[in-house]
Amino acid sequence: MNLFSSCRLALFIMDSNMKELMQRLADAGQSHLLQFCNELSAGERAELIHDLQDMDFQEITQFFRNATETSSSSRHEKMDARMEPVPREVLGSVTRDRDHLKDWEALGLQCIAQNKVAALLLAGGQGTRLGVSYPKGMYDVGLPSHKTLFQIQAQRILKLQQLAEQRHNIKCCIPWYIMTSGRTMEMTKDFFSRHNYFGLGKTNVIFFQQGMLPAMDYKGKIILESKGKLSMAPDGNGGLYRALGNQGILNDMQQRGIQFIHVYCVDNILVKVADPAFVGFCVQKGADCGAKVVEKTNPTEAVGVVCKVDGLYQVVEYSEITLATAEKRGADGRLMFNAGNVANHFFSFPFLRDVVQKHEPQLQHHVAQKKIPYVDGQGQLIKPDKPNGIKMEKFVFDIFQFAKTFVVYEVLREDEFSPLKNADTQEGKDTPTTARHALMSLHHRWVLNAGGHFIDENGRRVPAIPSAGAAGSVTDDGNGNLKDGTDLPIKCEISPLVSYGGEGLEDLVRGREFHPTLMLDENGVHELVKNGV
Amino acid sequence: MNLFSSCRLALFIMDSNMKELMQRLADAGQSHLLQFCNELSAGERAELIHDLQDMDFQEITQFFRNATETSSSSRHEKMDARMEPVPREVLGSVTRDRDHLKDWEALGLQCIAQNKVAALLLAGGQGTRLGVSYPKGMYDVGLPSHKTLFQIQAQRILKLQQLAEQRHNIKCCIPWYIMTSGRTMEMTKDFFSRHNYFGLGKTNVIFFQQGMLPAMDYKGKIILESKGKLSMAPDGNGGLYRALGNQGILNDMQQRGIQFIHVYCVDNILVKVADPAFVGFCVQKGADCGAKVVEKTNPTEAVGVVCKVDGLYQVVEYSEITLATAEKRGADGRLMFNAGNVANHFFSFPFLRDVVQKHEPQLQHHVAQKKIPYVDGQGQLIKPDKPNGIKMEKFVFDIFQFAKTFVVYEVLREDEFSPLKNADTQEGKDTPTTARHALMSLHHRWVLNAGGHFIDENGRRVPAIPSAGAAGSVTDDGNGNLKDGTDLPIKCEISPLVSYGGEGLEDLVRGREFHPTLMLDENGVHELVKNGV
Repeated sequence: MNLFSSCRLALFIMDSNMKELMQRLADAGQSHLLQFCNELSAGERAELIHDLQDMDFQEITQFFRNATETSSSSRHEKMDARMEPVPREVLGSVTRDRDHLKDWEALGLQCIAQNKVAALLLAGGQGTRLGVSYPKGMYDVGLPSHKTLFQIQAQRILKLQQLAEQRHNIKCCIPWYIMTSGRTMEMTKDFFSRHNYFGLGKTNVIFFQQGMLPAMDYKGKIILESKGKLSMAPDGNGGLYRALGNQGILNDMQQRGIQFIHVYCVDNILVKVADPAFVGFCVQKGADCGAKVVEKTNPTEAVGVVCKVDGLYQVVEYSEITLATAEKRGADGRLMFNAGNVANHFFSFPFLRDVVQKHEPQLQHHVAQKKIPYVDGQGQLIKPDKPNGIKMEKFVFDIFQFAKTFVVYEVLREDEFSPLKNADTQEGKDTPTTARHALMSLHHRWVLNAGGHFIDENGRRVPAIPSAGAAGSVTDDGNGNLKDGTDLPIKCEISPLVSYGGEGLEDLVRGREFHPTLMLDENGVHELVKNGV
Repeated sequence: MNLFSSCRLALFIMDSNMKELMQRLADAGQSHLLQFCNELSAGERAELIHDLQDMDFQEITQFFRNATETSSSSRHEKMDARMEPVPREVLGSVTRDRDHLKDWEALGLQCIAQNKVAALLLAGGQGTRLGVSYPKGMYDVGLPSHKTLFQIQAQRILKLQQLAEQRHNIKCCIPWYIMTSGRTMEMTKDFFSRHNYFGLGKTNVIFFQQGMLPAMDYKGKIILESKGKLSMAPDGNGGLYRALGNQGILNDMQQRGIQFIHVYCVDNILVKVADPAFVGFCVQKGADCGAKVVEKTNPTEAVGVVCKVDGLYQVVEYSEITLATAEKRGADGRLMFNAGNVANHFFSFPFLRDVVQKHEPQLQHHVAQKKIPYVDGQGQLIKPDKPNGIKMEKFVFDIFQFAKTFVVYEVLREDEFSPLKNADTQEGKDTPTTARHALMSLHHRWVLNAGGHFIDENGRRVPAIPSAGAAGSVTDDGNGNLKDGTDLPIKCEISPLVSYGGEGLEDLVRGREFHPTLMLDENGVHELVKNGV
């Protein structure tokens, strides 16, 4: 394509920068990005040129080559033979190692009291599938308190600091590093400042920004989503490592003397931020890298599994293995590859530093084929009905392979993992409703285990496992209606400021009977009038 | 109440039968049942009197006393201390005893070939919660073939007979006993005859009818649902044992030389009717009674568990145990009480005979408190908004306690259990959609394990675990979209006439690529145009 014919107008304003840019575009085979610039307003054109001047096309082209080379489906076929399950000796389990939990938690609290522990939140994504245009952390899933995910997590950090301070009688702080993206940075920072950082010290909430990468067609041409705008997306949660370096976060951690970092994803409403038991387990094992997992019990569940491949730890995505491998079982009857990844990790600072400084550049991007809206040669916007290009991402777990001492920590899904992914209109998986129910069900169990009880509108005690069927109609089918109850949770919410993980509730609830909706918060015990879950 | 004043009209037509009935009503304290009879048409009155004359009020009153005495919630509190889990030595598991499966199946097929095995279907319930007025077995969950549950089960029996015949080169038959209720008998029989018994011998499909019991208020008064009609409901799937005796079914089994009976519920779309592996396991263990279970993995899942109480086997309903007990775990990390009951049982004929002749009369009814529409003293129809009375039921598992050799057989939920309970409008648990997806997902796995493959509309191979996310939009959140795929099943249905449990598919699918919707039936392999799941 002849640039000069297609961009006459630009010539008039061309300066040396512009010449250089056009040369760089030509060298990278991306000159088409300017093909509509003579149809743009001065402002649009300036913005496009500004965007392009910031981009390293050589690097992007290299990313594309490496990523597409390694994403051949043949590779997936071969994966199975190279996979080994996580050996028992590197596994800590809340169900199988119950005797150690208290010690691990104590060690974790000690590290927190010594200001050695930081939390790192991956919040670069937008709530697109959730159907909102703002960061997921700002979402209100409809709890009685109407707290957002950000507020819930902030209050867990506050409570955890308190618990460590009480245990060790010393002031401490858990710095909270929050990775946003170009799309979410401003809204996120503004939200926190408007809410006065939810009571956390402003200086201890540190925002930084992951990179963006352009979407490309199968030939490696960057896609225009409009005549003057490139189709850009965050570079995956693995963008973390690059951002840690180029945004000065590593230095900040070093200055604060952080030694252990808990990294997690914004969308899990049950996440135990800086979980002291998990941190303590990893520290006690001398691990430089650890992954929290939940047991995968159904072979076809769509979750990646932590395992060894060619002797190195990694997460193998469910789409990468054959059914035969997914269905393999050990002598105990469990799935052999059952360490379900929940994007919840532990890193030692030295490990993280080495990753950022030495290993990250070697990492290749993953390729996701996508339906990407684009403008065609005539400038028409096309919304394709089948994948027409790729998005390049790195994943936070891509660096497991570099760990010297890798450990896995298995927790209970119903206690710790309920991600918010989809809007309630979708088929009911990982929705605001499932997230809300998961949290209220957990808090309901906390109350029962602390000796409290719930009574229904008829003044009768609700069974530990409540059931709609129990008050069903006489026209139920005649076959054992008791088994047919649905498990709608009792409406119960406990503020993280009252309890981080179920502790400290006895004095508030033991021997008492409550009508749902029950709320326990810093102002005490409230029983609200019944309203829709 | 003075019967003669309230029922003047009846006096004129009163004969000795009527006198006797009124006396029986008075003796049982149920005289109120006639309080509106002078307002009824002659036909209505005749029907009411006919219904009443068939009833044994003394017995019903006794049922009420026994049932209400034993259903105090205090009993439930005490339950926990008396519970013991199923010992390993009585447990057979498809995941932990894989080496024995072939032998068990072979033994089961041998028993079938010897005409010793019968299937017994519990189908007395109406699809009320499903939102239909006909028997559940007549429901079409929307499979590509649009087969009903009855047809699917009939064809599994046909195929199983074939497999046994081929293996042992001898003709054989699995009689199918179908328990209906007063509400479903006619519709069920008519449906089978209209469909020519789905290819089964008419004489080998034997219908019988469970009893009905009246709903009662908390004082033991039978409830009128209209001025001339009692509120009646089936007496629970435990009504089976009484019906086996008074409907001559035991004799029929004896004449046919049936030695082993597989009892199951109509609503499980995945049910392996007369499952040879389950039957073989029970026979090999010399069991007189066996229960098929699925592992309960979440403490608050609403499922009853098979366990020992005071040394005797029974099913403890989830509503009867405390959370502390539900959360107990063994050294292996599994829930201690994890044998989830799925209403799928094995009985030896002698055991069943003893139950019917000796034990059944001792069984007490369970009480379910219900909202029961009723006519008040003024004849107004009232729809209560809180439970106002009880329904009395026996459960099929009430007789476990009488077993001398009881065994438990653990299978995989995703392979064998997906009950149809609720309409799709409800919160998505046990619906036509979940049942349909469960069956298609199982058949999809059968095809993959037999060496077949599926390709999508773009001609690309679909991963073993298909994901909507894989072709998602570039606007996905930036955090590892591969993990966000939903697990909509590939549309694939295999007729039971082609494969009972996944066997015999290699010749049809190995090395072949299929476009969904794929159908394998007696007429061959069909690939249908894409349509809604």
